[in-house]
Amino acid sequence: MIKNIGSNTQLKKISSIIAYRAFSKATSVDNRFKCSLVQKYAARREYASKQPPKLTSETYSYVKRDEKYKKLTEQDIEHFRAILGKKGSLITDEVPSDLDFYNEDWMRKYKGQSKLVLKPTTTEQVSQIIKYCSEQNLAVCPQGGNTGLVGGSIPVFDEIILSVANLNKIRSFDDVSGILKCDAGVILENADNYIKDNGNYIFPLDLGAKGSCHVGGVVATNAGGLRLLRYGSLHGSVLGLEVVLPNGEILDSMHSLRKDNTGYDLKQLFIGSEGTIGIITGVSILCPPRPNAFHVSFLGVESYEMVQKVFQKAKNELGEILSAFEFMDKKSLQLTKSHISSPEPLEDEYPFYVLIETSGSNAEHDSAKLETFLSSAFEEELVLDGTVSSNESEAKNLWSWREMIPESSAAGGGVYKYDVSLPLKDLYSLVDAVNEKLEAAGLSSITDESKPVISAIGYGHVGDGNLHLNVAVRTYTKDVENCLEPFVYEFVSGKKGSVSAEHGLGFQKKNYIGYSKSDQEIKMIKQLKNIYDPKGILNPYKYV
Amino acid sequence: MIKNIGSNTQLKKISSIIAYRAFSKATSVDNRFKCSLVQKYAARREYASKQPPKLTSETYSYVKRDEKYKKLTEQDIEHFRAILGKKGSLITDEVPSDLDFYNEDWMRKYKGQSKLVLKPTTTEQVSQIIKYCSEQNLAVCPQGGNTGLVGGSIPVFDEIILSVANLNKIRSFDDVSGILKCDAGVILENADNYIKDNGNYIFPLDLGAKGSCHVGGVVATNAGGLRLLRYGSLHGSVLGLEVVLPNGEILDSMHSLRKDNTGYDLKQLFIGSEGTIGIITGVSILCPPRPNAFHVSFLGVESYEMVQKVFQKAKNELGEILSAFEFMDKKSLQLTKSHISSPEPLEDEYPFYVLIETSGSNAEHDSAKLETFLSSAFEEELVLDGTVSSNESEAKNLWSWREMIPESSAAGGGVYKYDVSLPLKDLYSLVDAVNEKLEAAGLSSITDESKPVISAIGYGHVGDGNLHLNVAVRTYTKDVENCLEPFVYEFVSGKKGSVSAEHGLGFQKKNYIGYSKSDQEIKMIKQLKNIYDPKGILNPYKYV
Repeated sequence: MIKNIGSNTQLKKISSIIAYRAFSKATSVDNRFKCSLVQKYAARREYASKQPPKLTSETYSYVKRDEKYKKLTEQDIEHFRAILGKKGSLITDEVPSDLDFYNEDWMRKYKGQSKLVLKPTTTEQVSQIIKYCSEQNLAVCPQGGNTGLVGGSIPVFDEIILSVANLNKIRSFDDVSGILKCDAGVILENADNYIKDNGNYIFPLDLGAKGSCHVGGVVATNAGGLRLLRYGSLHGSVLGLEVVLPNGEILDSMHSLRKDNTGYDLKQLFIGSEGTIGIITGVSILCPPRPNAFHVSFLGVESYEMVQKVFQKAKNELGEILSAFEFMDKKSLQLTKSHISSPEPLEDEYPFYVLIETSGSNAEHDSAKLETFLSSAFEEELVLDGTVSSNESEAKNLWSWREMIPESSAAGGGVYKYDVSLPLKDLYSLVDAVNEKLEAAGLSSITDESKPVISAIGYGHVGDGNLHLNVAVRTYTKDVENCLEPFVYEFVSGKKGSVSAEHGLGFQKKNYIGYSKSDQEIKMIKQLKNIYDPKGILNPYKYV
Repeated sequence: MIKNIGSNTQLKKISSIIAYRAFSKATSVDNRFKCSLVQKYAARREYASKQPPKLTSETYSYVKRDEKYKKLTEQDIEHFRAILGKKGSLITDEVPSDLDFYNEDWMRKYKGQSKLVLKPTTTEQVSQIIKYCSEQNLAVCPQGGNTGLVGGSIPVFDEIILSVANLNKIRSFDDVSGILKCDAGVILENADNYIKDNGNYIFPLDLGAKGSCHVGGVVATNAGGLRLLRYGSLHGSVLGLEVVLPNGEILDSMHSLRKDNTGYDLKQLFIGSEGTIGIITGVSILCPPRPNAFHVSFLGVESYEMVQKVFQKAKNELGEILSAFEFMDKKSLQLTKSHISSPEPLEDEYPFYVLIETSGSNAEHDSAKLETFLSSAFEEELVLDGTVSSNESEAKNLWSWREMIPESSAAGGGVYKYDVSLPLKDLYSLVDAVNEKLEAAGLSSITDESKPVISAIGYGHVGDGNLHLNVAVRTYTKDVENCLEPFVYEFVSGKKGSVSAEHGLGFQKKNYIGYSKSDQEIKMIKQLKNIYDPKGILNPYKYV
């Protein structure tokens, strides 16, 4: 049972309740994460339609197969078989359903028509495959764990799928420097467990899909995830990459140096390139020491302005131990209520809620810092009510109120999802603007079931400037879509935000890059694509 | 007076001595840094020869002016005068000595022959200047604070010097997100002071030259500096750049988003590009909250193996508050003794010394963590002796033993300096190998003054894998140089290290990149240079 520490009149209780509540062993914390993530993953599978997805080429009939790409022949397959050698590394359409996992995305929103999946076991094999594809003009869709959300990891037409799933070895781990070198196909959770067991380190990135996604995939998509606030972006922590270029050449940049100022930092181009200019086959990454203690608190806040003030205060006072700062609005919590059996974190309702996680090397110190911070936040009336986890299961419960929002917002019939970055001060104004627009158009009502839209809700990673805008609907209509788009993108563009904070461009957002990048930037991005992949064989129909 | 907490028999003393010794106000800490840096800067000027440097073209007579570049005419100068308008933004050779500051490097090792310095006040002016230079084939040397150590910021021949010193405005600072936007020519220390005074933030990089170097310059050279261990590299913290490309186009990528996955991360190419593919005119950077408390400890250690163990332990136990981990060998300290008036940190001599700095949000907590860490390091016999600063002046004294090494190692007559990155386990073996080689060649002796070499010493940023190898000599000889080179570079190359950890390539290391990068990487680096600067007008004769 979570105790309620809040309300302004109960300030003195805080210290006694908070004191030393950390669940302090890394192993149990991991279980907590694992549980909630497995739950999340399962939820996603449930959330997706049970119907097989329609072919992408049918849903988006304006996209046509580029006839410059050769169609696969038996000779090609024989050539690949000779490269790969052993059985099981090559999947054809002999049993068509064998291909479904590779042709369909996680959300079952997209479906490709590939007739061939290749699963090389060495970088050399990847190189030989790509060299042949380049010579033969065969289009290739590189694939990691296939957990992407923008249709980037599945083919659009008949591209050959090159899965790195069998490139799955830890190459080395230095327990003094914390530098991990591994194949691209190592599952994120396996990498994290390995470095936990071999020196008590932590992978500097965590994701809902950690049990399925690959290390190479998170680098190729520059995934953000749950630890970005604390450990920064992959552009800072990746030290080296091994990449097979679109002509089949292997770029061996598997460096393991924190400092190296000898030439342009080539690897940076491949971080977030979504398989369009090279296939990442190896990753060298700097991992930080694993924190020993985690605390989670859940707070009620009066306004978005106050959310920002709490964030600023948390950064200053919790400083080096602040590891997550998430917010959600009242409607997010209201929608979640009907889909969650856990006790509510707070007795009363508040316009906004904040979830703060700290992680550090000393549970007592962290607890004391949190106590001081919360006491003064109450005193300054930045926070109206709050609770702090006293054990693992309470922490998990608090996190679940944040993690269940995506499913809950879809449960009324459907959801339009936007993943945007905005300057902090403008972050929530998008949600207000969308609700106003929907109401003005007479499309939205929480109670009137004849209206297509229930409400727009906002939540996300305030710490990273990343808003998830979900428009919960009873039914999908063209009117709603026209009301939302391009309005949302124009709004984000007007505030110099990003239309894709963490999910990437893939197939879904290929045409929206202009809302976040200038013509000049797009010209330079296309220039790089043309230089590295002049034949355009890598991941076509996507990105730019 | 610094108290000695060490020796194995005095373990119980530690706790009473360490308890709450932090000098806890940010302002006083800043003064400490400022003092030691001013000292360092002054020292550099003293260290450099009082003689004006020889022309680079004389010292390195094999480098010839490329006749594809047009020679400056009066018409060109008139054109630039028209662009810049106001007086004082353009320096010609009317009074030749006015050009010296811009033509000579900090160490007075290189000297260019430029007849014109341009100091635009707007990005638009930079754009117009570069557009004209591109059309006219006029070579340009971009210059920031001119504090580089590899001859990268001064011309080799008659290149026009484009100084960004007058682009010196803070554009904006968001005290909620910590995002600073400023012109490239803002002095690093001014930027740091500004964000300290406007929200208690800290610039995520610190340097000896902070009072002179520019924000744009540190980004263009991907400077590492004193805070890298804590705040990571600029590739992680720079959020956006404004760059004038070699054809004069302005690339406006002044984004202020922590997360933005819409296309290749173009700005990364310019971080560390040393002015060869564009001139950085604006920087957007994420700044962390300023720590409130700093502690410094100085420890005696038995072997380099133990240094590594102490580092590993410090990372795990000091975790989020560890902000510097420096090491030095016995000879480094011996050389320093004769050049420093401060009391010695430890009574006895040890084979290796470690300086640990912590910085955090709570002085008591940090002190307690340090105490626990040191007690157990003594118990486990990882550390033989040690001392902890109890106030600002003691901390400054401890730092001075590390900071005075560069000067001290040169005081015997001269010094060959190498700034390399190596895998941690191999870091010190380079020093041993060099000393063995020098001794075997009969070139080295600490006592015999007829030998050219005194000794090779090793010190540096263990936390970053960055070794400073200084070969202290009585006199420079060709024999010593031939004994050291290419041996040092080959050694570093053999361990997959970097021949330039933080100083960059510039003019000095242009020809050594092959020791750190493969042919494939060099090919790709040259390809990028040719794409962005096909006429080669930006910073010629350098980098690649």
